[in-house]
Amino acid sequence: MHTTQALLDSLVDHKLAINLADTAQKNAALAAMADQLEADTDQILAANAKDMLAAQGKISSVMQDRLLLTAERIKEMADGIRTLIALPDPVGLTLEETRLDNGLIIEKRSQPFGVIGMIYESRPNVTSDAAALAIKSGNAVILRGGKETFASAKAIVTALKAGLVAAGLPAEVIELVEDTSRQSALELMTAKGKLDLLVPRGGAGLIQAVVEQATVPVIETGTGICRVYVDKAADLEMAVRVVTNAKTSRPSVCNAAEVLLVHQDLAATFLPELEGALGGQVAFRADEKAASYLQFTQPVQAEDFDTEFLDYILVVKVVANADEAIAHIAQHSTGHSEAVVTADTATAERFTQQVDAAAVYVNASTRFTDGGQFGLDCELGISTQKMHARGPMGLREMTTYKYIIRGNGQIRQ
Amino acid sequence: MHTTQALLDSLVDHKLAINLADTAQKNAALAAMADQLEADTDQILAANAKDMLAAQGKISSVMQDRLLLTAERIKEMADGIRTLIALPDPVGLTLEETRLDNGLIIEKRSQPFGVIGMIYESRPNVTSDAAALAIKSGNAVILRGGKETFASAKAIVTALKAGLVAAGLPAEVIELVEDTSRQSALELMTAKGKLDLLVPRGGAGLIQAVVEQATVPVIETGTGICRVYVDKAADLEMAVRVVTNAKTSRPSVCNAAEVLLVHQDLAATFLPELEGALGGQVAFRADEKAASYLQFTQPVQAEDFDTEFLDYILVVKVVANADEAIAHIAQHSTGHSEAVVTADTATAERFTQQVDAAAVYVNASTRFTDGGQFGLDCELGISTQKMHARGPMGLREMTTYKYIIRGNGQIRQ
Repeated sequence: MHTTQALLDSLVDHKLAINLADTAQKNAALAAMADQLEADTDQILAANAKDMLAAQGKISSVMQDRLLLTAERIKEMADGIRTLIALPDPVGLTLEETRLDNGLIIEKRSQPFGVIGMIYESRPNVTSDAAALAIKSGNAVILRGGKETFASAKAIVTALKAGLVAAGLPAEVIELVEDTSRQSALELMTAKGKLDLLVPRGGAGLIQAVVEQATVPVIETGTGICRVYVDKAADLEMAVRVVTNAKTSRPSVCNAAEVLLVHQDLAATFLPELEGALGGQVAFRADEKAASYLQFTQPVQAEDFDTEFLDYILVVKVVANADEAIAHIAQHSTGHSEAVVTADTATAERFTQQVDAAAVYVNASTRFTDGGQFGLDCELGISTQKMHARGPMGLREMTTYKYIIRGNGQIRQ
Repeated sequence: MHTTQALLDSLVDHKLAINLADTAQKNAALAAMADQLEADTDQILAANAKDMLAAQGKISSVMQDRLLLTAERIKEMADGIRTLIALPDPVGLTLEETRLDNGLIIEKRSQPFGVIGMIYESRPNVTSDAAALAIKSGNAVILRGGKETFASAKAIVTALKAGLVAAGLPAEVIELVEDTSRQSALELMTAKGKLDLLVPRGGAGLIQAVVEQATVPVIETGTGICRVYVDKAADLEMAVRVVTNAKTSRPSVCNAAEVLLVHQDLAATFLPELEGALGGQVAFRADEKAASYLQFTQPVQAEDFDTEFLDYILVVKVVANADEAIAHIAQHSTGHSEAVVTADTATAERFTQQVDAAAVYVNASTRFTDGGQFGLDCELGISTQKMHARGPMGLREMTTYKYIIRGNGQIRQ
């Protein structure tokens, strides 16, 4: 077994091979990685069967389904890698260029971070997605998945490494952490000088631990307590449609709505319509005013406003006006996605200006916060922080830049 | 006295007034802040005299000079604020706009971070510089200067606050931390959810403490151990000129060179010429090979390669070739500025590609790494990290962005 420190040192030693690889080399590697993944289908399924066996009785059937691989899912992972080949290379772009009076030429050029770390939970496909995004963006990568997917991830990484080698790149630029204890996560968080960026993907507990303990640069992702505010000037039919979509089209994802804020003037007409439209599919947790307009609801608890249920549960609160809605969001926002439904352009403008989140919607569902929907073609995650990257992160957000200054002996006066 | 927590809470309560201020309001505030600073010259000088008295015998005469204010220096601070007025407003810019097939319009719009914190040492002018940059970029700001400049900083902030009020903005968007103990620095570092960005400016010890303890987003600035590599294909006269400028034009700043790497084939001719040119102004600390070509030098110690001397000291090492120079830099770089002097374009290309620093120079002095020199017109600091901002940070780097999505009832399929 390799220690996490040994893997980090090896990545630092080998990173230039991928940091400096040209577009053709990287695309050849992606093609070979995808092919090898499919070629290794039997081995990957055998490894996955081990994970599934170990998981029996330990995790829910929903989680077991997330863990399960099939030949079709492996093909999807390979095709996912192949879609990256056609995307523009984010590395080596001249972002700006200035020629000074003294003749110096200052070029701001995009480049990979160097070594990226990813900490994530469940879903074996994240292993191939993250590795492929790292390769396309010229980064060496260290992956730390959950204990319950280790055998699957190991088999996947073995295939990806073979693909790298087939394309003439060293296998050592993609590594999987072998120690799945908490200790290895802490080693990644504190690998200052070795790890140039750490992206945790997972629940609030993981993100919180990383924020508190990391000394390496981190991009927080994922936790989304999204809200829809239905203003008094909302189109009723539109409001029902948007809230229904935001809540029920896929409740388990971070861009699903968790909280509904309703203007007091509209609550009496809107809430019964919404309850009728949802047809018992969603359990309400309503404040006192909202409850008076609903047939079936539980009373809301204070902590419900700060809980990411990821389930068919909707917290409902009646507010006096848009300002109360905006203040409520300022107090509880996780910085992900917030929406207003209103026909009043002044209210819409105030909402978009004052609400501080990655994505602020007017008359549309929060469910659109997604790299694919935003036209990024791929997505490493949704950043909920304000530094470097905000909202859906694509290949561009996996790069940094440097200034290259060319002269002929210039000195500063 | 206000506690740091009370100041942070007050900033959060008042931040929207500056976050949402338009360009005219912000420029009016800057003009009034500059005027008030000059109008308060007597009060500021009286406060500075207190700081100077308290400093006597405690800090070096160089540091005392950095601490000293004069009417002329206050005028310079005011003029520094006035130069920001003409600069473009970095807030509210449409960075990108996409119209999706479903009719959704996705706008990526620049916006202030919200509340920015600055921790810095000595130099009273940093107080007015940082506050003015924050106001221009639409951010509320909390300033924590050193204990030795507290009275001066307090008088300066009093003037700046009066300027804000004269322009119709709340005084509470610029605050000075009153507690100058380590505790208040720690409170800023861990003010998660209140402070949107923390920028430490100061020595390696301060930066290190912030990186280790901060849970809020941080931009590391300042520490620069810059190197010049003189290649075998260097023009001798140019190499002497560049090294002399990089080392001696202003040794106390972060973009001054600390280490000279010399190709072994050139060392015998170059080092004596350099020693002659420097005329005893610089003390060498040379490795064994380099020492054999120098008349006066001390032997280098291992830690000298990782020390920011900020003084007339030059560490000298002879290397076998460009690859050894590049490897040495990879091991010791602080990510600030690194230069090569060479007439060989292939070597120059390899150096710029492989050296990972904010600024990589070919045939020019490291002393150009500076916001003003890079055409930014102003500078909050030099970022030595790769996330969000790298190298000189101007107004643009003090902003983030959000996505504003406008629809007419779109839902996700």
